[in-house]
Amino acid sequence: MGRVVVDVMPKPEILDPQGKAVASALPRLGFHGFTGMRQGKRFELEVEGPVTDEVLEQVRQAAATLLSNPVIEDVVRVAPAEDHDGATA
Amino acid sequence: MGRVVVDVMPKPEILDPQGKAVASALPRLGFHGFTGMRQGKRFELEVEGPVTDEVLEQVRQAAATLLSNPVIEDVVRVAPAEDHDGATA
Repeated sequence: MGRVVVDVMPKPEILDPQGKAVASALPRLGFHGFTGMRQGKRFELEVEGPVTDEVLEQVRQAAATLLSNPVIEDVVRVAPAEDHDGATA
Repeated sequence: MGRVVVDVMPKPEILDPQGKAVASALPRLGFHGFTGMRQGKRFELEVEGPVTDEVLEQVRQAAATLLSNPVIEDVVRVAPAEDHDGATA
């Protein structure tokens, strides 16, 4: 059983109040040297069978239509889960 | 100027209603062959200067204390942004 990861981030020109709130908390907690932070979404899809090119194409379409709002968000990554992507299933 | 990516996912034993809602929409939109889906968060932090081991260690601490709730979430990845992570700044 395969797993595909989809990463969605707010477009650069879109305000990201959630990211700004987290960023302003960093120095208060003693974390310095960060100049910006943006918060997006990460989806992990479990696939029946192996992750083929067809499956990735299906996921790309789902990412563009269901997992992201193309007016304000970019799909920055659609890829088979790697080892460092962890195991959450 | 470097960029570090932090990925946070709900723990496997935690219910993920948001992911379930998205998963149940997939077949309605014509996407089949998916057995599960979980939704987490992705943070992109802009760093002054290069991404050193010290910076990564700081980010790891921030991820564990501010970016995730360790009771219900796992930090599945802290890594310098790669090319396929896109450019959102």
